[in-house]
Amino acid sequence: MNIPKTSYPRIVIIGGGFAGVALAKKLSKQEVQVVLLDRNNYHTFQPLLYQVSTGGLEPDSIAYPIRKILKDFPNFYFRLANVEEIDTNKNKVRTDIGHLKFDYLIVASGSKTNFFGNSEIEKHSMAMKTIPQSLNLRSLILENFEDALLTSDLNERNALMNFVIVGGGPTGVELAGALAEIKKGILPKDYPDLDTRMAQINLIQSGDVLLKGMSAKASEKAEVFLEKLGVIVWKNLRVTNYDGFTVTTNSDLTFKTQTLVWAAGVKGAIIRGLDGIEFTSKSKRVLVNEFNQVKGFDHIFAIGDIAEMVTLNYPNGFPMTAQPAIQQGDQLGDNLLRFIENKPMKPFVYKNKGTMATIGRNKAVVDLKKFKFQGIFAWYVWMFVHLFFLIGFRNRMVVFVNWVYNYVRFDREARLIIRPYKKRLKKN
Amino acid sequence: MNIPKTSYPRIVIIGGGFAGVALAKKLSKQEVQVVLLDRNNYHTFQPLLYQVSTGGLEPDSIAYPIRKILKDFPNFYFRLANVEEIDTNKNKVRTDIGHLKFDYLIVASGSKTNFFGNSEIEKHSMAMKTIPQSLNLRSLILENFEDALLTSDLNERNALMNFVIVGGGPTGVELAGALAEIKKGILPKDYPDLDTRMAQINLIQSGDVLLKGMSAKASEKAEVFLEKLGVIVWKNLRVTNYDGFTVTTNSDLTFKTQTLVWAAGVKGAIIRGLDGIEFTSKSKRVLVNEFNQVKGFDHIFAIGDIAEMVTLNYPNGFPMTAQPAIQQGDQLGDNLLRFIENKPMKPFVYKNKGTMATIGRNKAVVDLKKFKFQGIFAWYVWMFVHLFFLIGFRNRMVVFVNWVYNYVRFDREARLIIRPYKKRLKKN
Repeated sequence: MNIPKTSYPRIVIIGGGFAGVALAKKLSKQEVQVVLLDRNNYHTFQPLLYQVSTGGLEPDSIAYPIRKILKDFPNFYFRLANVEEIDTNKNKVRTDIGHLKFDYLIVASGSKTNFFGNSEIEKHSMAMKTIPQSLNLRSLILENFEDALLTSDLNERNALMNFVIVGGGPTGVELAGALAEIKKGILPKDYPDLDTRMAQINLIQSGDVLLKGMSAKASEKAEVFLEKLGVIVWKNLRVTNYDGFTVTTNSDLTFKTQTLVWAAGVKGAIIRGLDGIEFTSKSKRVLVNEFNQVKGFDHIFAIGDIAEMVTLNYPNGFPMTAQPAIQQGDQLGDNLLRFIENKPMKPFVYKNKGTMATIGRNKAVVDLKKFKFQGIFAWYVWMFVHLFFLIGFRNRMVVFVNWVYNYVRFDREARLIIRPYKKRLKKN
Repeated sequence: MNIPKTSYPRIVIIGGGFAGVALAKKLSKQEVQVVLLDRNNYHTFQPLLYQVSTGGLEPDSIAYPIRKILKDFPNFYFRLANVEEIDTNKNKVRTDIGHLKFDYLIVASGSKTNFFGNSEIEKHSMAMKTIPQSLNLRSLILENFEDALLTSDLNERNALMNFVIVGGGPTGVELAGALAEIKKGILPKDYPDLDTRMAQINLIQSGDVLLKGMSAKASEKAEVFLEKLGVIVWKNLRVTNYDGFTVTTNSDLTFKTQTLVWAAGVKGAIIRGLDGIEFTSKSKRVLVNEFNQVKGFDHIFAIGDIAEMVTLNYPNGFPMTAQPAIQQGDQLGDNLLRFIENKPMKPFVYKNKGTMATIGRNKAVVDLKKFKFQGIFAWYVWMFVHLFFLIGFRNRMVVFVNWVYNYVRFDREARLIIRPYKKRLKKN
C-alpha cells in the first residue's frame, strides 16, 4: 500500500467506528503516523440507523466522511480498504488494496449481526447494522405496502403488512416503535385503500424482559409504551427458523410474514489471523487485558465492540455500544503514546454514563447513574444526547430540522424507494 | 390492476414528473378518477440532480413521495408500475403489474438521455437523469479519488482525476462548476497526498456557445465563470466515441479519462404503442396539437418533455424543461374538465418565464423577459427560485440548511460512497 515511510512509528487502525475515530482523534498532531483503514469512506452513527430504515432520516445525516473528521492531522492517512488478514508474525495486514506493515495495530472492526449459525434466517431476514442494510429495509417496507395494494389474496396481503422484529434490545424496541408510528401516521394517509388494521408489528424477545440490562422500571415502561402504540410484544418466545414466508418458534406459534428483521444479537467482526480460540471468546470478540492489549501481544490492541475485556462487573465484557468504544479509543490514545515512550500504561476503567432508548414521540426511557426516568422528559434527553453525539454541525442541523418537522407533522418524508430491494433480489 | 370501477371517468396519467403532478393536482377534488402510474414512488426535482452527484444534497431533499403530494384527493390512485405498452384500440395500458383500462390517457413519461445511437458511449458513460444515476456518479467520483491514491502510474492517476463532461447545456455547465468547486474546496483538504492540479474538468460542447437558447451575454458570462473556476471549456468539438478509457472526437484531440458524463442530449421516453412514425418526431417526442392531444386521438394526450407541440416560435417543440411541463399539466387539467363536459378547450400558449443556470458560488446567469443579469445577484435569484419550486416545506428547509452550510464552509458533506459503483460493475 502506498503509504510513505517516515521515522515515526506507524499505527494502523482497522475500522472507523466510534472506537477507531476516537483513537485517531486522540493521536492527531502527535509524533506518530496513523493509517486508518475502513471499507467505507464514512463513519456511521449506528444508534440512528433505525430512523434511516423508517424514512425519518437520510444516510448523510448520520454518516460523516472519515477524511473530514481527521483532515487537520498531517500524519494521518485514510485508505478505503477491506482488511482480509492480520499477519501477526510479519506485523502486517493484508487488504484488498495490498499489504501494509505496522508497528502498532489496533483492531476496531466492530461487530456484525449474529444469526447464531442459522443460515436460513440469515438468508431471508433483514439486518440493520449498516447504512445499505437500513436502506434495503426501508425499500422493503415501502415495497410491501405497494405490493399489498396489488393482491386480492388476504393471506398474502396480511403477510406483506405483517412485520416481525426479533430481539428486544434497543434496536428492536426503537424500530418497533417507529414502525408503529408509520402505521398510525403515514399508512392511512398514503394508502387510503389499504386496511391499516392489517398492519401488525410483532416484537419477539427470547427472555422475559425488554431492554435487558436497563432498570426494571425502564423495561416495564418500554413495554407499556410499545403496547400503547399497538406493537404486539412477545416475551419468552424464541424464533427457530424463517424460510421467507413463515416464522417458526420454540412454541407452536408461527407468523406469516414477508419481513423478518433480525436484531437478536451481535458478534465480533473478527478478522483472520486473530480468529483462533486462543484470542477470541465465544461471541467472537478478541480477548484483551486491561490495557486493551490482545492476549499474547504487546503491540496489537483491540477496542470497542470487537474487544472483550473481562472485569468483575462485566464478566462477559462491556456492552457492545458506543460508550465503551469511545472511552477505550480515547484512553488507548493516551496509553499508546505512553507505551511508545516506555512509560507505564493506565488500566481502562469503564464509566457507565447511562443507557437510553426511545419508543416513539414523547416516549423514551433513560437510566442514568442517579436518576431513572421515562416519558416525555426522557424523550427530550434522548434527543439532546443523540444530537450532541452526532458528528458535525450540518448533521446536527439537518437532523434537528427533520425531527422538528416529523414531530409537528406526524410525518416521515424520506419514504422513498430509491433502490428497490425486492426487484434486485429477483435479478440476482 | 386493482382499481375500483366508479361512475366517474377514469383518467390515467403515465409519469409523476413536473407535468404529471401538475395535472393531477389540478384534477384533485373534481368528479373524475385519477390513476397516476410511475416506476418510482417519488417525484424528482431534476434541476438539482447535479448537487446529489456532487455530494451537496441527499436524494430526499429533491425527491418527494408522490402519494403525499396527492393524499387529500379521494379519487386518486397511485400505482408503482412500469408502463410497457399503450393499447390505443382497446383503451388500456399494459404494465408490469397488470392491465388498466382508461377513458382518458395522459402520457407524461418525460425524457431520457439521448446517446444518438452510440451504444459504446451508452455503455461506458454516466448519465444524470435519475436519482440512482446521480448517486452512481457521486460514488464513481469519490471512488476515483480513492483509487488515484493507490496507483503510482501517473497516466492512470491522471485518467482517474480527469473528468469529461459532454454537453454545454445547463446540466453540463452546472455539473462542471460543482466539480470545479470540489477540486478547489474538498480535494486539497481530503486528499493532501494527491496533487490537486492533476484533477481536470473538461466541458465539451459541439456548438460554438454554452447554454444555447439563453442570451449571448449569459452564454459568454457562463464561460468566463467556468474558466475562472478552472474548467477547461472546449467548443465546436464533437465527441465521437468512448471505450471506457479514451474519448475520441471529430478532431485529432483525445482525452484519457475514467469518467465521461453524457449530458449532450435528451429524447422522449416513448412507450410502445405510440412509437410509430405517425405519432413521433425525430427526437422521439409525441406530436400533439395545441390542446396536447396526440395526433389522431381525442382522448389521448401528451404533456411535458414527451410532447412536441409545433408552434411558430418553437418549430421543434418547447424546451424540455420544467416550465412547459408544469404549464401544460396545469392547463390540461382545465381542458380535460371542459372536454368531459363537452365545452371547447383552450389552446396552450407557452409563457417563457425565463431561464437560468448556476455555475458556482456567487456565480449564476439569469435571463428574464425584461432583465438579463449575471453574477452574485443572479445567484441569489437562482437559489430563491429553486427553493420556491421545490415541493414541501421540509425539503426547502433541509436544502436551505445545506446551502448555507456549504456556502459558509466551502464544503459538501454528503461525499459518501454508500453503494460503491465500480465494485458493483465488476460483480455484474
